[in-house]
Amino acid sequence: MKFTKIKKQSLLPAYLIIALLLFSGKHAALFGQNNILVFQSDFGLKDGAVSAMKGVASGVSPDLKLYDVTHEIPAYNIWEASYRLVQTAPYWPAGTVFVSVVDPGVGTNRQSVVMKSRSGHFFVTPDNGTLTLVAEQLGIQEVREIDEAINRRKDSNESYTFHGRDVYAFTAARLAAKAISFEQVGKKLPAGVVSIPYQKATFENGQVKGGIPILDIQYGNVWTNIGKEVFNKLNIKIGEDVTVLVYNEKQKVYKGKVRYVNTFGDVKEGENVGYFNSLLNFSLGINMGSFSEKYKVQSGNEWSIVLTK
Amino acid sequence: MKFTKIKKQSLLPAYLIIALLLFSGKHAALFGQNNILVFQSDFGLKDGAVSAMKGVASGVSPDLKLYDVTHEIPAYNIWEASYRLVQTAPYWPAGTVFVSVVDPGVGTNRQSVVMKSRSGHFFVTPDNGTLTLVAEQLGIQEVREIDEAINRRKDSNESYTFHGRDVYAFTAARLAAKAISFEQVGKKLPAGVVSIPYQKATFENGQVKGGIPILDIQYGNVWTNIGKEVFNKLNIKIGEDVTVLVYNEKQKVYKGKVRYVNTFGDVKEGENVGYFNSLLNFSLGINMGSFSEKYKVQSGNEWSIVLTK
Amino acid sequence: MKFTKIKKQSLLPAYLIIALLLFSGKHAALFGQNNILVFQSDFGLKDGAVSAMKGVASGVSPDLKLYDVTHEIPAYNIWEASYRLVQTAPYWPAGTVFVSVVDPGVGTNRQSVVMKSRSGHFFVTPDNGTLTLVAEQLGIQEVREIDEAINRRKDSNESYTFHGRDVYAFTAARLAAKAISFEQVGKKLPAGVVSIPYQKATFENGQVKGGIPILDIQYGNVWTNIGKEVFNKLNIKIGEDVTVLVYNEKQKVYKGKVRYVNTFGDVKEGENVGYFNSLLNFSLGINMGSFSEKYKVQSGNEWSIVLTK
Repeated sequence: MKFTKIKKQSLLPAYLIIALLLFSGKHAALFGQNNILVFQSDFGLKDGAVSAMKGVASGVSPDLKLYDVTHEIPAYNIWEASYRLVQTAPYWPAGTVFVSVVDPGVGTNRQSVVMKSRSGHFFVTPDNGTLTLVAEQLGIQEVREIDEAINRRKDSNESYTFHGRDVYAFTAARLAAKAISFEQVGKKLPAGVVSIPYQKATFENGQVKGGIPILDIQYGNVWTNIGKEVFNKLNIKIGEDVTVLVYNEKQKVYKGKVRYVNTFGDVKEGENVGYFNSLLNFSLGINMGSFSEKYKVQSGNEWSIVLTK
Repeated sequence: MKFTKIKKQSLLPAYLIIALLLFSGKHAALFGQNNILVFQSDFGLKDGAVSAMKGVASGVSPDLKLYDVTHEIPAYNIWEASYRLVQTAPYWPAGTVFVSVVDPGVGTNRQSVVMKSRSGHFFVTPDNGTLTLVAEQLGIQEVREIDEAINRRKDSNESYTFHGRDVYAFTAARLAAKAISFEQVGKKLPAGVVSIPYQKATFENGQVKGGIPILDIQYGNVWTNIGKEVFNKLNIKIGEDVTVLVYNEKQKVYKGKVRYVNTFGDVKEGENVGYFNSLLNFSLGINMGSFSEKYKVQSGNEWSIVLTK
Repeated sequence: MKFTKIKKQSLLPAYLIIALLLFSGKHAALFGQNNILVFQSDFGLKDGAVSAMKGVASGVSPDLKLYDVTHEIPAYNIWEASYRLVQTAPYWPAGTVFVSVVDPGVGTNRQSVVMKSRSGHFFVTPDNGTLTLVAEQLGIQEVREIDEAINRRKDSNESYTFHGRDVYAFTAARLAAKAISFEQVGKKLPAGVVSIPYQKATFENGQVKGGIPILDIQYGNVWTNIGKEVFNKLNIKIGEDVTVLVYNEKQKVYKGKVRYVNTFGDVKEGENVGYFNSLLNFSLGINMGSFSEKYKVQSGNEWSIVLTK
């Protein structure tokens, strides 16, 4: 459908196309990449690894806009890499290129890919599960394998352990700068990616069940993957209580009632709340406190949550 | 006065105005915002919150220059947010837009404002005390309330907990990109802001008293709010000793003499010094050591300091 | 030789010069600075110091591209500053200006310099050992002393403790923005810099000896300064074992065999490996583990390593 639109516009007179290009920020999805490159990794900020990647990108084109998701993904934690991408990508304009390097298999034969989402974003990464959530929530438009014969930094063949710099940053920069088209990344793959299995939110027998994919670490809030549509089947109104059970595997870690509110300021300091977070998922918190710390609740595949009225 | 200048220039011939615009970096105060947007928050850098804000700003205009003060303000610490702004804003060119989000009252009815300082900087923030020190030291030119009916990210009305992304970053980006004028932020408020009370530096009976607003955390130096003018009333010369008393509430935490010097290298390693820091406030340190750690001195409203000759 | 090239080009017709300028990214070495400014320091990211430096740079020219190596150099650790520069600078385009501020001697009479390397990079820093490794590996083209009578932020003479902001960032920004030429930095010095002595990699009597300049902290890998050429004298092939001894001064800290592989994925989880890192130096690691933590190996001048077949 997007292709159709491009064709139509190519019939417009040149001056109109130029006018459109002047406003291309808003139409980036039609024209592809938008010169913005956003980095994510588990490298941390204490050494020079992130800087080396940005240096390579600046060498491809000094006009790229280089930003970050985070470089504090816990080492090797592909699941969190996947979560942070889906937490942020939708807020960046279509045409933005993301490069995510959480790559415990670096130098082995896992595939290096670029996925274009239906939302018009590009994701450059090892295909090791990092794409799980963006593929699901933004949709897969097309996946291509990075052809390292072409898309690899010159003279980098002796280095096996830093594909972030030599392959991913380099390819992502060339793509963002339109030095290569999406097609020139490499051959088209079947439209699927490696996906990490996880518990989805469900409603059954008056109970909502869900997962705890991640913590809101800075404040100690506990984020579930239960969206409003599923939650609303409990028919609980703002100001009413929700009964909450949190499990680590089969072990009950927390049982209690929390007040369902819009925001923390709706209760006194130190009081527990249930609320919908900035991604509109049900979350647990304490006004001016840390739910996660107080009740020893963590996140990940082995954690689950049950809500009842 | 600035308005007068703008009027005069509008009488200049067009080519002169264009010439002036070409050099507008130097005259940003005359023409308003300068396309630079600087972020501060207590979000930390471990998740995607800062990136989501920058994504929203890039969506408003990919040509904005996006920078940071810090995102490591301790959670909910409005006083430190206020201090970090006044520590940095004067070094950025006039016309720079700052957005500071330390917002324990998010989603409640605290006011969301943009303050323009007499120095020509803009501050986009909840009006919760964050503006205390910039209002005082840079002066208030005008304060406007953000009209969320206009200045709020589309389709964000269901999210109550991330005004940093949905209101502040969005409004600040539109202001910095001149998509809106300062007047279009919303209605003009009385020229005052919510202010956190704190102990000012005084001289009385041969004693200088002051507060300890903050630590120079990386090195363990203790920064007071005693400027040169007040300190000089003690009539202590470079190379002479200062007698120092530090209190936590009424309790004496440190008593001793420190050498008053220009810089750390003026004494041996491990020796205590008193010096004027990069903001020209009297400070305590140890050459190659941590005064704060050695003597258990912290910062905040309950800490005070007394200096005598 | 580079000057000769510039002269030749100045004889070209204007349109060809313009054409060349359009591609100047690739020829930055010929034309000098490239508008990119990269910061490094031991300031950390918790306060406003880095932001103040970038504010000063933006005030010099809002069009500069401002990036970072890291600001998490351990306080006063000049050696690590030197290492992080050489780890990253070669990946940035020629013409990039680096400013590194790890400056325990701030305000004393250590020299403030700009070194141009043979690779066409500029380094603005106190000459206190920070330049050790870039001087050695990228080569010294020319060293100039910063003339603070000209190259110092206006009205900053009362501040003795933040040359990073008042002298280094200011001068580096003016250099990167071509507000001054390299010659205008100040008078030319003899082509040498203050250098930190360290153990080089050697081969003798069937043994390779080397130093452990730094850890790959995020993953706990141990990086030596033994390059491939020296290592290859042991005649060990991929897949074979290397016998490793690690010393802290004279004390043996680790003795064992590690498998020599291309990358971590070549062994099972938890197994030790020897491999060549992203800078092509011999390194020790554990697949999905931390060699440094498990065997209590640290880095620095007092650490050494011996390899045999």
